[in-house]
Amino acid sequence: MAGPGVPEVLDLAGIFVFAVSGGLAAVRQRLDVVGMVVLAEITALGGGILRDLLIGAVPPAAFTSLGYVLVPLAASALVFFWHPQVTRLLPAVLLFDAAGLGLFCATGTLKALEHGLSPLHSVLLGVVTAVGGGVLRDMLGGQIPSVLYDRQLYALPAMLGAAVMAVAYTADLHGGAVTAGAAVLATGLRLLAIRYGWRTPRPRGVPD
Amino acid sequence: MAGPGVPEVLDLAGIFVFAVSGGLAAVRQRLDVVGMVVLAEITALGGGILRDLLIGAVPPAAFTSLGYVLVPLAASALVFFWHPQVTRLLPAVLLFDAAGLGLFCATGTLKALEHGLSPLHSVLLGVVTAVGGGVLRDMLGGQIPSVLYDRQLYALPAMLGAAVMAVAYTADLHGGAVTAGAAVLATGLRLLAIRYGWRTPRPRGVPD
Amino acid sequence: MAGPGVPEVLDLAGIFVFAVSGGLAAVRQRLDVVGMVVLAEITALGGGILRDLLIGAVPPAAFTSLGYVLVPLAASALVFFWHPQVTRLLPAVLLFDAAGLGLFCATGTLKALEHGLSPLHSVLLGVVTAVGGGVLRDMLGGQIPSVLYDRQLYALPAMLGAAVMAVAYTADLHGGAVTAGAAVLATGLRLLAIRYGWRTPRPRGVPD
Repeated sequence: MAGPGVPEVLDLAGIFVFAVSGGLAAVRQRLDVVGMVVLAEITALGGGILRDLLIGAVPPAAFTSLGYVLVPLAASALVFFWHPQVTRLLPAVLLFDAAGLGLFCATGTLKALEHGLSPLHSVLLGVVTAVGGGVLRDMLGGQIPSVLYDRQLYALPAMLGAAVMAVAYTADLHGGAVTAGAAVLATGLRLLAIRYGWRTPRPRGVPD
Repeated sequence: MAGPGVPEVLDLAGIFVFAVSGGLAAVRQRLDVVGMVVLAEITALGGGILRDLLIGAVPPAAFTSLGYVLVPLAASALVFFWHPQVTRLLPAVLLFDAAGLGLFCATGTLKALEHGLSPLHSVLLGVVTAVGGGVLRDMLGGQIPSVLYDRQLYALPAMLGAAVMAVAYTADLHGGAVTAGAAVLATGLRLLAIRYGWRTPRPRGVPD
Repeated sequence: MAGPGVPEVLDLAGIFVFAVSGGLAAVRQRLDVVGMVVLAEITALGGGILRDLLIGAVPPAAFTSLGYVLVPLAASALVFFWHPQVTRLLPAVLLFDAAGLGLFCATGTLKALEHGLSPLHSVLLGVVTAVGGGVLRDMLGGQIPSVLYDRQLYALPAMLGAAVMAVAYTADLHGGAVTAGAAVLATGLRLLAIRYGWRTPRPRGVPD
């Protein structure tokens, strides 16, 4: 799902971390090996697949690259055998997840812009790229998607990164540095929100 | 998602009412502001997006029009701040929801017919347009889609409107009056069903 | 969804059995007639629709053939009126379901290969064709998809049949006999797994 200027290794690193989060969700819900592989693949690739279906880029990138399928498989194997150790590394996983979130919102927005969508719709699709895999992971696991209720700043940093990307693109600023900048902003806001416990509001009058 | 002859303001009114129903579902499930916006957008746009993906009209209309994205955002803001007042207006919301149901089944069927699908498949896609957003709203909210079990006449009026639309189109009757007629029939049946408490049957021998 | 060389009657028989399984799920969950028809159609057609969306074959085959829509409707009528009798035939249903699984993984893989996807991605899409309908059925019914946790050999036989199909195709072996062979292998493994109670593993250290 890499946009131009994004080193492929970075893109695959993002895929890997999202896949680990899918695999750990499978452990928590006591799924079997099939469930683990499905959740790892869907968490890592689902957002990009949704975006590609919506902009008409079919087959989606996940179905034309071997790496996109094999990396989540490797992540599944890791979690299958060593999930207690991986769980202990969760703070690091959260850090990498924030990096994946930033990267995917920036590259997802860029791909939509390059397919001719408006800046507003491209921002939407950037957010879909970043959070869509996690939404599908939660739905498959029988849970309300955490992004809808957990009040963490997760979708909002993705929206910030996507908006910066769209504004820069509209101002004719292109290249890897722009993409990296948007990604870093989103990742940074996500990490600050974790650090300081920032929350999104509930509708007026709805108690905690 | 308007077909020819449907005033755009009517189309956006339907979008608005469906978005309000999504926003109210978010309040009931105590989602945060992100969950509310997502449910409002998906409830309003999900049926049309599914239809457009299935007939190959990509990007879907929701990703080429600003109004389709901004109107649910406005509905979210309304529900976020004034949901107790909106809830008190629920009978009116049900009325408008019936109008949206009628409008969307008619225009959804027409769009499928114009893309060359058979009358039977166009009826199917008209129903998908009308009820798809509500199905996605319920699935995202962790609930069985109400249209599958609540025994209200909701999908059946949509099917009636879609069938009338398809028959008229096959008989070379076109134009805004035909679309309006099909929409009014579906809306009327839905309102009669609410008024008289008509129910759909359960499989033989399944108790209440 | 039939590939070349697959008699259409066999294809429709697979659709019918999958639809019966969807209808029976609707009875268990006490859905109404709308829910039953939706679950029957989705279980029978959902896997093929997902595959066709992902390879860009739109409208999906289910939206260009009358039989694909009418057969699940007939299955719904059968289950609606005679579900106690159908439930008693469940061992036979399981047998036919295994046949449908084998047929769909083979023809699904073939269709993806013919659309130019790589063998690995075609195997993935063959498995999606075979199990996708059941996954959507479970999600609509508010349950975690059984294929993710029930430890039965269901996805793995589909993967075996899909892999055999892809290897044969890559080795320039074509025709109905090859498709039939792959289907029979998958069906056979599924039946052996039922007969001998073979199970898929859970992640290391996760208790039963």
